[in-house]
Amino acid sequence: MGRTARRSYTLDDIGIVPTRRTRSSADISTAWQIDAYRFEIPLLTQPSDAVVDPDTAVAVGRLGGLGVIDGEGLWARHAEPRRVIQELIELAETAESTEQVVAAVQQAYSAPVSVDLLTEAVHTLRDGGGTVAVRLSPQNAGSLAQQVISAGVELLVIQGTIVSAEHVQGSGEALNLKSFIADLDVPVIVGGCTNYQTATHLMRTGAAGVIVGTGAGMTSTTDEVLGIEVAMATAIADAAAARRSYLDETGGRYVHVIAAGDIATSADVAKAIACGADAVMLGEPLSEADSAPAAGWFWPPSAAHPALPRGYPLPTGSADVPIERLLNGPAIGADGRTNLFGALRRAMAKTGYSDLKEFQKVGLSVAH
Amino acid sequence: MGRTARRSYTLDDIGIVPTRRTRSSADISTAWQIDAYRFEIPLLTQPSDAVVDPDTAVAVGRLGGLGVIDGEGLWARHAEPRRVIQELIELAETAESTEQVVAAVQQAYSAPVSVDLLTEAVHTLRDGGGTVAVRLSPQNAGSLAQQVISAGVELLVIQGTIVSAEHVQGSGEALNLKSFIADLDVPVIVGGCTNYQTATHLMRTGAAGVIVGTGAGMTSTTDEVLGIEVAMATAIADAAAARRSYLDETGGRYVHVIAAGDIATSADVAKAIACGADAVMLGEPLSEADSAPAAGWFWPPSAAHPALPRGYPLPTGSADVPIERLLNGPAIGADGRTNLFGALRRAMAKTGYSDLKEFQKVGLSVAH
Amino acid sequence: MGRTARRSYTLDDIGIVPTRRTRSSADISTAWQIDAYRFEIPLLTQPSDAVVDPDTAVAVGRLGGLGVIDGEGLWARHAEPRRVIQELIELAETAESTEQVVAAVQQAYSAPVSVDLLTEAVHTLRDGGGTVAVRLSPQNAGSLAQQVISAGVELLVIQGTIVSAEHVQGSGEALNLKSFIADLDVPVIVGGCTNYQTATHLMRTGAAGVIVGTGAGMTSTTDEVLGIEVAMATAIADAAAARRSYLDETGGRYVHVIAAGDIATSADVAKAIACGADAVMLGEPLSEADSAPAAGWFWPPSAAHPALPRGYPLPTGSADVPIERLLNGPAIGADGRTNLFGALRRAMAKTGYSDLKEFQKVGLSVAH
Amino acid sequence: MGRTARRSYTLDDIGIVPTRRTRSSADISTAWQIDAYRFEIPLLTQPSDAVVDPDTAVAVGRLGGLGVIDGEGLWARHAEPRRVIQELIELAETAESTEQVVAAVQQAYSAPVSVDLLTEAVHTLRDGGGTVAVRLSPQNAGSLAQQVISAGVELLVIQGTIVSAEHVQGSGEALNLKSFIADLDVPVIVGGCTNYQTATHLMRTGAAGVIVGTGAGMTSTTDEVLGIEVAMATAIADAAAARRSYLDETGGRYVHVIAAGDIATSADVAKAIACGADAVMLGEPLSEADSAPAAGWFWPPSAAHPALPRGYPLPTGSADVPIERLLNGPAIGADGRTNLFGALRRAMAKTGYSDLKEFQKVGLSVAH
Repeated sequence: MGRTARRSYTLDDIGIVPTRRTRSSADISTAWQIDAYRFEIPLLTQPSDAVVDPDTAVAVGRLGGLGVIDGEGLWARHAEPRRVIQELIELAETAESTEQVVAAVQQAYSAPVSVDLLTEAVHTLRDGGGTVAVRLSPQNAGSLAQQVISAGVELLVIQGTIVSAEHVQGSGEALNLKSFIADLDVPVIVGGCTNYQTATHLMRTGAAGVIVGTGAGMTSTTDEVLGIEVAMATAIADAAAARRSYLDETGGRYVHVIAAGDIATSADVAKAIACGADAVMLGEPLSEADSAPAAGWFWPPSAAHPALPRGYPLPTGSADVPIERLLNGPAIGADGRTNLFGALRRAMAKTGYSDLKEFQKVGLSVAH
Repeated sequence: MGRTARRSYTLDDIGIVPTRRTRSSADISTAWQIDAYRFEIPLLTQPSDAVVDPDTAVAVGRLGGLGVIDGEGLWARHAEPRRVIQELIELAETAESTEQVVAAVQQAYSAPVSVDLLTEAVHTLRDGGGTVAVRLSPQNAGSLAQQVISAGVELLVIQGTIVSAEHVQGSGEALNLKSFIADLDVPVIVGGCTNYQTATHLMRTGAAGVIVGTGAGMTSTTDEVLGIEVAMATAIADAAAARRSYLDETGGRYVHVIAAGDIATSADVAKAIACGADAVMLGEPLSEADSAPAAGWFWPPSAAHPALPRGYPLPTGSADVPIERLLNGPAIGADGRTNLFGALRRAMAKTGYSDLKEFQKVGLSVAH
Repeated sequence: MGRTARRSYTLDDIGIVPTRRTRSSADISTAWQIDAYRFEIPLLTQPSDAVVDPDTAVAVGRLGGLGVIDGEGLWARHAEPRRVIQELIELAETAESTEQVVAAVQQAYSAPVSVDLLTEAVHTLRDGGGTVAVRLSPQNAGSLAQQVISAGVELLVIQGTIVSAEHVQGSGEALNLKSFIADLDVPVIVGGCTNYQTATHLMRTGAAGVIVGTGAGMTSTTDEVLGIEVAMATAIADAAAARRSYLDETGGRYVHVIAAGDIATSADVAKAIACGADAVMLGEPLSEADSAPAAGWFWPPSAAHPALPRGYPLPTGSADVPIERLLNGPAIGADGRTNLFGALRRAMAKTGYSDLKEFQKVGLSVAH
Repeated sequence: MGRTARRSYTLDDIGIVPTRRTRSSADISTAWQIDAYRFEIPLLTQPSDAVVDPDTAVAVGRLGGLGVIDGEGLWARHAEPRRVIQELIELAETAESTEQVVAAVQQAYSAPVSVDLLTEAVHTLRDGGGTVAVRLSPQNAGSLAQQVISAGVELLVIQGTIVSAEHVQGSGEALNLKSFIADLDVPVIVGGCTNYQTATHLMRTGAAGVIVGTGAGMTSTTDEVLGIEVAMATAIADAAAARRSYLDETGGRYVHVIAAGDIATSADVAKAIACGADAVMLGEPLSEADSAPAAGWFWPPSAAHPALPRGYPLPTGSADVPIERLLNGPAIGADGRTNLFGALRRAMAKTGYSDLKEFQKVGLSVAH
């Protein structure tokens, strides 16, 4: 009566509807290109210390995806990050209360960011041969961006749980994304956002890509803490609509939409693209890889917040899947948690589409 | 075919939608003012003996909220209420059937209300320095109101599960809220109600605030016993609409809407305000406070009904959270059960609103 | 695309919405009258051997309701029905497979109906002082009706899972309800039906009451076996609409609507009346009475079907509730399973209605 | 905003609504005829090695249904298929991970198809006296069809998870269904498909029947792997609409619609017909038959896929139901898993319909 609310849908709510045509998997391309960088599979890694470090990022790059590392992660704060991660996992396995675990995570992330460590990590990435992508938080982007770019970063990801083009601050200076991006020499991906209006404003900052979603998965509690909930199918479709409007408004500037959050299986990957995403950013699903820093465990970047943590290290499943089978198959088992992009390829074949851009038009159904 | 029913939504059904703007938490005010009384956080305690007694009410006041104590609670019936509460909990822990527990609760509340004990409790509150607020039932408000006001009560809460402005009684006298409130020297908050029409009528009684909802939570069984169910998101939005109409009708009298029931996490607090509430009344969520009289246990006031009890003492979780961290943080763990109002502040920041009145306009989504 | 389906609602889907008025429970009447018979509570017993036999029916009558016994039940087939029931329960407690239990139930009900036993039971009922009501199946009503009426039956209930006014049979004679009812000297209640059209046709047979629903509860499997599902809130509202149309069509003949099925708590009783029922027929909820023949167990009449049984004896809860507290309170515990009609009275009071006919107009909400 | 999705319903979402008429079960026919072949019950077996082999197919034929065997099944690859099946089950019972089981299934199905074994199986079927029906995959239909027809196949089933009339292939030849079917001397059933457009195109290939659905049940994971989900009630209704349009378009060619997938109980069988299917194809529900090759276990044909398996052997329940009771009753127990077609007959009787074609018009309701 007094309020209206918009009906929204999760990826679970929807299904892909086959068409009257099918194709061979062999004739299908899952390639994705942003700015000058081309990738064989539409994958970015979520910059969580649990799943990606410079070594993993290099491996992901060789398999066709884009490994994004957290410029404010444990790698940038500790000389022996793997030891810190092991200690967090051991504590999580034995702690009597989750409060202890949350406190230990906050502690580990309270160490200062070291520019030396960051630079070293970037070098490892660059030497590995893939595209060098680093994530910074909106709070610290201003102070750290030039340094990481000097160190060789090719793609900058500015990502918080919720980011806006217009951050109002009573005192002190806030990050002006538009002028900030204009001053940089590298393409920038920004996010997350969750609706048409914010996506449009983020596109207008000059970003090459916009992240949709808060990156949340099973191990995140943003919805219980803040009440901010994102129904990803609706959020992606909204951002894709913003992409079309902005394309028209600018006479041809195409800003990529990257879906981050609530993507657990190969079916979810296919549905995210089907809803209009150009690529997906995966965190939790990569935690089963044997090469993941915290193999078998995951926590979101927001777990480190000093006053309002959202999530903490939780076990996510097996820890022994080779990353190549996880991404490109053949599948291990039949639960949709491996061969994530081989299954995308097959879903496209079964519905008769030959590239990602076409597949964004596939029919969708909504469960009752 | 023969009947129409209105579609309604719970707080769980809805989500808060970010806008294109964000703010710093530091620039945000969660202050709330009713009549001459101003509070830093929009909190009233549910007058349940399980969570609030004069001492807790004083503590809540110091932390910025309003502690409401039950004028017909165990405090007003027993010289050693803490002992009675301990006995109820011990029985609940060992009883073979819930029937025994229900009967013991009924028994404990069958002792007569003592005006001396009530007066003593009010003095404790007044000496504590906060606003002195006491709840009376509609049945007993007539006989007890003047006494508690004489004892120093500043805000009177008249609250039953369901209260109406127009109680029809064949014989005997019923409480005429309008003339009753007109005769009192203190502002009155009345409720609960669940829809537009009743909220409007309660506003017309001259009340300073109207309670929306029956105060139900996990430990209440009103819906199983009476079939009266309240979808809080809809009920709050309805009452907020009534507030607007009444504001217009009276040329400016603003009656506060207080949401009571089905609020379990900080997300629910934020959603209740987002739906249009001016403040929330919390019971169960406060039962984890180490200072709660029945720390770790809860029962609703309706558990004491002699013929049709709805609820009984049930364990609700830990019992060792300092009340200040429960209300204002920092959070313990990541489940949204602590730092309830710090998280509200952050939800407002993330969506770009600087005060509660503005935040009532934030966008809402409805899960499929 | 090729088919349309009507949206329908269960009692669980809906909630009762309070009005701007409340009343005292003392001023409320739950009386119900059908033909010349008046009852203080709107209760008929489901004619299941598990919950009602002549003795229980007498007790129910004394408490204000109408006890209906099954004219084709174990009472009419065995000289010692209580022993047969005990054996069924003992088997159900120890059997290795439900198939054995189903077979034993079929066996017990394969004994022939004895007119002597039936007559004896009717005498017990008549001597008990209440209204004498017996249920017959549509298949056997033709051959048994005159006998039970001669024995003193005052109200005849003709009830199958699904009954229609128009039973088409290729060979042999079918029951013509209209001429059958016209020939009888007693009022007849018929059912179950589940929609407007069938209810209308059953009303046109001259019945005094029409049963809505298949009598199903937790222990019935009609929906899994036949696919025939009844969303009771919709079915009751439909039948009430048929009642209004038929009232208009006949210039004043009021046919009572009796809701049978999916009523488990006092909330469900209140909701059934709120949807438009004049009375409820209860089976499973009465099985907790200490006086029930199979106290603590229940099976529906359809459990006895030789080729397609739907349900079998299942434990339903405690077996020690005095029938008077079950019906009229005070409640034992707070789960809505006792004080079924005291709670109805209170739900009416809380929403401001003074009799059942008025309460049929109370507002309803549908959960999202 | 940017995308539209069609609302769709599963068989669980809907219910059958009785009419104002009932009939005797004795007057009802469940007969179904496709091309020159008439069947007493509208049943095709899903061509899964777990439930059907030549012997079972003969038994199903004697009971009035159509046994379809998998022309590329274990029977066509191994001289002792029963031993292979036993080994798979033993492994599934003891394996430490599902990955091992999946790998063993892939291995068992990697043996080459032997035309001799296939021919021998077809002879067994023909000698058994029923209609000889064999399934081939779209990939292998071109190379194997003439051989199985020469061996005596009377009905050819070309079935993959998703099949289209128009398979686009960059290189190599794809199966042109239209010319392929035109060249064959036997009627062809093709599928699965899931929507109106594809069903129409498959009808235009000259097929005698079109399969709706992917054949999925509890043991399939197609939805988790590919994101392709089929809400069967909607899919069947769509295909039935395509049947009507095509009937009109061709001036009288009636293509049968066969529902395959998500049919677990007799209620589901009745609902599938009620939605517009002419017959149902059952797999998992037949796995409880004592004569099933893998009695008590099931896996879908798609479990054998070398790179993207969807499903693996899982236990499904008891393994000791005589196939005649499973299909035609009397029922064992009351859970709708036996007497599948006797219950269909009764559902038709209870709603007053005398044949399947009429029953396709029965009313449907959608649960809230």
